[in-house]
Amino acid sequence: MSGVTNGPALPADWASAFVDGELTIGGIPASRLAARVGGTPFFAYDRARVAGRVAALRQALPASVDLHYSLKANPMPALVGYLGRLVDGFDVASAGEMKIALDAGMAPERVGFAGPGKSDAELRQAAAAGVIVSLEGQGEPERLHEAGRAVGCRPRVMVRVNPAFDVRAGGLRMGGGPKPFGIDEEDVPALLRRVAALDLDFAGFHLYWGSQSLDAARIAEAQEQAMSAFLKLAAVAPAPPRLFNLGGGFGIPYAAGDPALDLPAAARNVAAAAARLAQQLPDARLIVELGRYLVGEAGVYVCRVLDRKVSRGEVFLVTDGGLHHHLAASGNFGQVVRRNYPVAVATRPIDGPRETATIAGRLCTPLDVLARKAELAVAAPGDLIAVFQSGAYGASASPAGFLSHGAAPEILI
Amino acid sequence: MSGVTNGPALPADWASAFVDGELTIGGIPASRLAARVGGTPFFAYDRARVAGRVAALRQALPASVDLHYSLKANPMPALVGYLGRLVDGFDVASAGEMKIALDAGMAPERVGFAGPGKSDAELRQAAAAGVIVSLEGQGEPERLHEAGRAVGCRPRVMVRVNPAFDVRAGGLRMGGGPKPFGIDEEDVPALLRRVAALDLDFAGFHLYWGSQSLDAARIAEAQEQAMSAFLKLAAVAPAPPRLFNLGGGFGIPYAAGDPALDLPAAARNVAAAAARLAQQLPDARLIVELGRYLVGEAGVYVCRVLDRKVSRGEVFLVTDGGLHHHLAASGNFGQVVRRNYPVAVATRPIDGPRETATIAGRLCTPLDVLARKAELAVAAPGDLIAVFQSGAYGASASPAGFLSHGAAPEILI
Repeated sequence: MSGVTNGPALPADWASAFVDGELTIGGIPASRLAARVGGTPFFAYDRARVAGRVAALRQALPASVDLHYSLKANPMPALVGYLGRLVDGFDVASAGEMKIALDAGMAPERVGFAGPGKSDAELRQAAAAGVIVSLEGQGEPERLHEAGRAVGCRPRVMVRVNPAFDVRAGGLRMGGGPKPFGIDEEDVPALLRRVAALDLDFAGFHLYWGSQSLDAARIAEAQEQAMSAFLKLAAVAPAPPRLFNLGGGFGIPYAAGDPALDLPAAARNVAAAAARLAQQLPDARLIVELGRYLVGEAGVYVCRVLDRKVSRGEVFLVTDGGLHHHLAASGNFGQVVRRNYPVAVATRPIDGPRETATIAGRLCTPLDVLARKAELAVAAPGDLIAVFQSGAYGASASPAGFLSHGAAPEILI
Repeated sequence: MSGVTNGPALPADWASAFVDGELTIGGIPASRLAARVGGTPFFAYDRARVAGRVAALRQALPASVDLHYSLKANPMPALVGYLGRLVDGFDVASAGEMKIALDAGMAPERVGFAGPGKSDAELRQAAAAGVIVSLEGQGEPERLHEAGRAVGCRPRVMVRVNPAFDVRAGGLRMGGGPKPFGIDEEDVPALLRRVAALDLDFAGFHLYWGSQSLDAARIAEAQEQAMSAFLKLAAVAPAPPRLFNLGGGFGIPYAAGDPALDLPAAARNVAAAAARLAQQLPDARLIVELGRYLVGEAGVYVCRVLDRKVSRGEVFLVTDGGLHHHLAASGNFGQVVRRNYPVAVATRPIDGPRETATIAGRLCTPLDVLARKAELAVAAPGDLIAVFQSGAYGASASPAGFLSHGAAPEILI
């Protein structure tokens, strides 16, 4: 009953979404969604799956922990608006994302703005909006102070710490060693003295150690070290820290053999960090910021088979989709080893005749392969293909202008 | 005098473009261009360099060879319009590119439309426009015939051949073995019989064996094999072929140690192919289609240093640019091994004080590095950074929406 055997298995809860031989998303058959969109390809995000993930986190985490959504995973305004009613805050990484966050109705003091390269124009926008800026540039405290004076607002700040510890949590490392992100932990006390001398409202600390980790024990280790760094730095802060942003890093499985993150184990450790904070700094709040973990598994990329071609014994399903919409699924977005995302033929029963086929995109480049030699239901032109785990780092992280086919619409169901 | 030693050398003709300690593009200082654009980052394409490359090709190639520009390398309308006055035809890979080609004033019979996945809507557009469609889908002859009937035009076609020979020319392989591109050479005779029975105007053959090869001898080998395939297939064509598109594949150097293509050697071989064709099919024309080779070296991506940060002994220049504008320069677009593009500080003399620095983009991801540990002039916030070899597969091949900073303007100088 798996959607793909040579490649990752169809996620179990998607297997049960096949009804009468067709994939449903949010209870609606994929072909009907294509008709509603007016064509293919498209991205569909399932509200119920997003809400389910947030509910699971709320159940596992102590009520005292603030859950933030990081917009870089998926900035679709309707999705951000929906999440705004479920989470406690947003994290943004550009003025563009800040606009989406504020348009969604989130209170500015619940929006964090981080990023290694903030322009003076962005700092003025952030100051005027009243969001909390994560200081991480060498010259940023003074530049933000000036921005605040220019717009007549006192900027709220956190200090983003590049930890002294070595992050071993897997996935993408955002901290430890020499980095363009954050202020090296050993340099933070000197920076805090500069912050104290400027007209800046110090709110707390931020430490983003990495992302896409599937190892709860390693995440726990990084979080414990982060808490130790926070508590040490709190002693030299210009004001009692109100906020500690522990980062996120909870990953989702993409390829065959990827384990799902052990959420209860990961949550137990966040609870331990929260307890440690409550004991030492009872007025401070702990923030966990998650992007991919909230939305990644709720999204499906749907495209249509234009041609079924047998070339020298190999079956190719040439689709109207491609890497211009879904670069990560094609294995070309920074991946060293190409591994198939979970895929299925959306318009065929998953227990019918099967074959090994390569799903190609429509672009005129050999890079454009959505799944290589996957085991799939036998498909014909007109059938729909579903690429799962596509809710994060899909539409917005792809070169939509490449070959001028145009962007894929996104719908929230 | 090299712009980078740890990393590729500054291209020699760009070293001479530093005037009074600042890089000029098309004779204009980079900082003045930034003021003209109204900000950074931007892509600048130098008309004179494009024209110079076309002139060098014209001088090296026989006059009987048609030179085509492949829009997928860079579809900027002004650039395509400029090239339309220099080359003999265009190759497009989508209805979007076809519109740009026709808007540029190219005659439709000089526009080729290729791509593994063409929708019925695109086929109708191509038939109505009168461009030459490269047939390569299993069901495409009949679908194009229907499209022609629907719009009342007789479609012009070429047959794109997936060769039986093994392509060893380096770079990206587009032919040989099982492929989603073209019709397997051994299946072409049967396809030609279908074409003969349909209302299609057969124009010739197309064989695109690969791209970005720096080895003239290997290119020669692929082209000779392509000509042999063409001449064999011509004997079973439904009408005398008028056009043979040999593909392109001429590469440009990106990284340290990449040799420049030996153009005279590559051109000698095209001349030999043309002579062979003139002898056997004197009424047919030979086409060479080039994209990157025409425009890649004419483009520069310019961004500004926002922060100079020393983290644990390493210097980071954090810029307002990044992989959202220039994915290939960040090494994340299908590259297995990351190698720096040639880079320089545009607003500092190239013979002044130097240091080793990493040029980071502004995105909040460790993938966003434009050059790792490059030897550069010592730079400060406000300085401009130039990334060379950025005229092809830059702006249009990057995820401009990622992190919502917005796209980079492009200018033609």
